[in-house]
Amino acid sequence: MGYDVSETQKLLMLPGPTNVPPRVSRAMLKPLIGHRGPEFKQLHSDVLEKTKRVFETKGDVFILTSSGTGATECALQNTVDDGDKVVVTENGFFSERLTEAIRAYGGSPIVLRAPWGRTPKIDDFKKILKDNPDTKVLAVVYNETSTGATIRCLKELGELCARQDLLLMVDAISILGGDELPVDRWNVDVCVTASQKCLMCPPGLAFVSVSSKAWDKIQKKKTRRSYYFDLPMWKKYREEGFTPFTPSVPLFYALNEACDMILEEGLPRRFERHKVCAQAVYDSTEAMGLGIYAEKESRSYTVATIESPPGIDEGKVRELVRTKYGISLGGSLGEAKGKVFRVGVMGNVGSPEIMTTISAIGSATAELGFKVRISDGLEAARLTLARLPGRVN
Amino acid sequence: MGYDVSETQKLLMLPGPTNVPPRVSRAMLKPLIGHRGPEFKQLHSDVLEKTKRVFETKGDVFILTSSGTGATECALQNTVDDGDKVVVTENGFFSERLTEAIRAYGGSPIVLRAPWGRTPKIDDFKKILKDNPDTKVLAVVYNETSTGATIRCLKELGELCARQDLLLMVDAISILGGDELPVDRWNVDVCVTASQKCLMCPPGLAFVSVSSKAWDKIQKKKTRRSYYFDLPMWKKYREEGFTPFTPSVPLFYALNEACDMILEEGLPRRFERHKVCAQAVYDSTEAMGLGIYAEKESRSYTVATIESPPGIDEGKVRELVRTKYGISLGGSLGEAKGKVFRVGVMGNVGSPEIMTTISAIGSATAELGFKVRISDGLEAARLTLARLPGRVN
Repeated sequence: MGYDVSETQKLLMLPGPTNVPPRVSRAMLKPLIGHRGPEFKQLHSDVLEKTKRVFETKGDVFILTSSGTGATECALQNTVDDGDKVVVTENGFFSERLTEAIRAYGGSPIVLRAPWGRTPKIDDFKKILKDNPDTKVLAVVYNETSTGATIRCLKELGELCARQDLLLMVDAISILGGDELPVDRWNVDVCVTASQKCLMCPPGLAFVSVSSKAWDKIQKKKTRRSYYFDLPMWKKYREEGFTPFTPSVPLFYALNEACDMILEEGLPRRFERHKVCAQAVYDSTEAMGLGIYAEKESRSYTVATIESPPGIDEGKVRELVRTKYGISLGGSLGEAKGKVFRVGVMGNVGSPEIMTTISAIGSATAELGFKVRISDGLEAARLTLARLPGRVN
Repeated sequence: MGYDVSETQKLLMLPGPTNVPPRVSRAMLKPLIGHRGPEFKQLHSDVLEKTKRVFETKGDVFILTSSGTGATECALQNTVDDGDKVVVTENGFFSERLTEAIRAYGGSPIVLRAPWGRTPKIDDFKKILKDNPDTKVLAVVYNETSTGATIRCLKELGELCARQDLLLMVDAISILGGDELPVDRWNVDVCVTASQKCLMCPPGLAFVSVSSKAWDKIQKKKTRRSYYFDLPMWKKYREEGFTPFTPSVPLFYALNEACDMILEEGLPRRFERHKVCAQAVYDSTEAMGLGIYAEKESRSYTVATIESPPGIDEGKVRELVRTKYGISLGGSLGEAKGKVFRVGVMGNVGSPEIMTTISAIGSATAELGFKVRISDGLEAARLTLARLPGRVN
């Protein structure tokens, strides 16, 4: 064969799944163990302790065997009673899904919209909450993965919610571990994320954190319609050191290793690395003459959404980048269909990954006929990447 | 260290998770891919085709990223409407859980009980269905993992259900791939299983098969309360070749490899191997002077439930077998607490695994003071194992 593409590790510059470090992949091969014995109890306890440090919480964290959407389902099923008013942001594909999900579980969503690529601002939140004083839950997608826009007033939202009988639920699927989110300090009551994004694990695990304020609500909840995601049952088994349902043990091994790597790097340095890498993508994109989809003040540090050159379908750019340069980029969803492609800047990403990605995007758009200033882009990326914090190893 | 127990592969004679063949484990290390691209589409299509052959169905099969309980939740959420009468068997821990789950999702369970270690028989089913002609779903745990009892009239139940407006839902979590279950021929409408049992994969994937009769019901269902498990949404994404939510790609790789191994062996030979191995456990158990928990006519070929010697807590037997002989056995649940231990005979199991397990059980019970006839047990196991079908490789 010489060059067997199916055996070649592609560079995953997707907004999930992301590149899994070999150290994390290899951990999956540790000897499998039963999930009702002392070995799993120890593994579970270790992983939980480390995960809580990554969440910056002393509250509860539950590790579910599901995708991130499963964790969102878990969060909502346990905290939203039939007819409960839930104020929910809607500014992209995943926040629209969140609204749909709230409706499916019997909640009554009050939608706070912002155009795709933008985010609602603190005054918008204040107004909608004032207009709906009987709101029970404020649910936000912290980082809208489909548009690359991050809600930058999350800390203020936490302060707002802390002052009243209102839970703050945060979908942090594409951001936790890559940007600031100190769950306790920011008064986040329920925080949801998944393994295959900034936590740089394979997909298959998802997380829900629960504050004591959220527990009060959960215990009072009248209807219980999920069994697999029933948090009181999870808590009961947790007290014995176990999970109520079979956990994906190889993924727990991977997570344990990934948490070690995250904590070795340290959260502040990790967030800085993501921010500089994302900034390098933005700076080089603009220098090359391509547009950025998200408004400047909301640009995400974990996923950069780039406008395809005029008249060129984004799928063509991605296809060329994938087949010729071995790099997977994210496609467009919903309203942005055909118009943008997305560069994940999540987890195990540094200068080599960013430089080769910028180079490939430049070459591909040029090959498709766009007059792109590739060398300006590379120079901009290089300059910004020089600000990267030093490596741990 | 010399002997580092955490690096030693334990023999998992659990009723799940089971021993993952190295070929299957290694497949998890194939290069990770995005789940919205052409590579995953191909992988998904290959795995589905093979899985359907293992299920012996031409109907739909969905592969969920969850444990088996998640798949049960999916099956029930999609087919049981509020207030629907569901006749459900209850003869052990997992069937009791099923009843609880039916209630949680709004169904009205009509319980068909049998004592633990036994199973309801065809006449019991006929009677309860006659007494409840408005039953919408018949839900059975084909193999009650907590007691080691298999319902042997499943084929007849399928015939009964096929003749009327009644769905047959089968929890086959601890049996599919290890004993007969031709989904289409036996008229099973919804069949649920999980990756870490007879399919010899790591835990983290679960399966739901759906007949066309079940689809009719699903499409008419009024309330949809799950999002993660919503089958119409799964079907919509399937039509494009994808899953609606992030799949655990490494586990898909593992499943693909495991299906290859299963189909190389062939289902009839595979079922015969399980049956002979289980029979060897039963024969040797009796020859050693230990009791078998399940009634003779219902004894499972995938999990053997053995009574702990009088006055000896089963936990002590398992602890010794685990720490001294490196073999994990299943513990007791619910009503059988303290009284029985369980030997999983699932997946990648043959003569070496059975002989060493019998030997360890014999030695451990002897060390704990029981007068056990170990050599009679080993001789009985050996004789029965001589009936094993020839190996494929």
